[in-house]
Amino acid sequence: MATMMSNALVGVPEVTAFLGAATPPEWVSEALKQPDILLLDHANCELKAASTALSLMFRYPRHSKLVYRMSRLAREELRHFEQVRALMEKRGTAERPLTASRYAAGLRKLVRKTEPDAIVDMLIIGAFIEARSAERFAVLAPKLDAELGRFYAGLLAAEARHFEQYLDLAVEYHAGSEAELEQRIELYRNAEAALCCDPDPQFRFHSGMPVMQEGHQAR
Amino acid sequence: MATMMSNALVGVPEVTAFLGAATPPEWVSEALKQPDILLLDHANCELKAASTALSLMFRYPRHSKLVYRMSRLAREELRHFEQVRALMEKRGTAERPLTASRYAAGLRKLVRKTEPDAIVDMLIIGAFIEARSAERFAVLAPKLDAELGRFYAGLLAAEARHFEQYLDLAVEYHAGSEAELEQRIELYRNAEAALCCDPDPQFRFHSGMPVMQEGHQAR
Repeated sequence: MATMMSNALVGVPEVTAFLGAATPPEWVSEALKQPDILLLDHANCELKAASTALSLMFRYPRHSKLVYRMSRLAREELRHFEQVRALMEKRGTAERPLTASRYAAGLRKLVRKTEPDAIVDMLIIGAFIEARSAERFAVLAPKLDAELGRFYAGLLAAEARHFEQYLDLAVEYHAGSEAELEQRIELYRNAEAALCCDPDPQFRFHSGMPVMQEGHQAR
Repeated sequence: MATMMSNALVGVPEVTAFLGAATPPEWVSEALKQPDILLLDHANCELKAASTALSLMFRYPRHSKLVYRMSRLAREELRHFEQVRALMEKRGTAERPLTASRYAAGLRKLVRKTEPDAIVDMLIIGAFIEARSAERFAVLAPKLDAELGRFYAGLLAAEARHFEQYLDLAVEYHAGSEAELEQRIELYRNAEAALCCDPDPQFRFHSGMPVMQEGHQAR
């Protein structure tokens, strides 16, 4: 899958090389069956990405490089949020409450408690979330209708850039050896791949292998 | 003071007419003595304004007009935040922790618990914070050095616009009579004027009448 995408879309080779597993084709099929949930959850993800960036700014105000990057990243995610909401309105997708997927919480429970371990872990998580988002936009874009496909292909480059920025910050604030950092990345790589590939009864933008029951779609 | 400013700066007449009291000249004198605290607290205020906008978006996702406005407002506040941080760096103002003023907490404790009263109260508070910010930028701008004065005069128009947007949303989501809304605005007008004019041992962007003791500046 990585090879298939790498020639088509900028930024995707780096992203797929970073991830521990490709998105299961079954997730893609499910996404095409649930375009409303996909858009609704995508809007939530953009808003949460902005909110996470702000929480890092509040928590680490003296980390100047992080502060500027997160501020610009939050502004970009908010612009994407507005674009998703506009698309939702155009398509008649009504806003409604949607529970979060297990994904971000599943990654965050691995964050170490002391500094600078905590910040490094959170930045690694940021890198994986952005990388996975880019990878899913890449597999979805060619299968969606023209309007949504174009939109997702456009977002992909931004997410791939955010992935690199998060990873660069993790390298910047990491205090130990390179091997130690690699080890942390590997730990998150495996956890993230499992969250995206293991059976998951709930369909969301970052959910795992769909195991829906007819008429019993978890909302 | 309103008359003095109204001819000089766009958006200020509406703002001063809305506020229950002008900023005490003693606050302005104190601000000129504490440019570092002013910048540091100003940066915090911009970030908090963005964060408050996001929290409203999370809380009222179906209020489409609010959601779009808050998203754009948050983006603008973040851009201001970046500009204040850049000015701080240029001027050698080191980032350091600063406790919040009594101002926002003092207003928020008046927020009613049930909807739509709660949202209307929060939007009225937003309007007052933006109005007061614009008013203080207006009184400060002519007394600061050229660089900071130009910057604050530039922010003023944005804050005055945000004030109008918050007020417009309060009108939009208010369910009762116009008189009832006016009554709530009057309640916040008095509370806000007191917070900005009553003795306040701590100097901040939104603090009250300075009552500093020599060598005992509350940080």
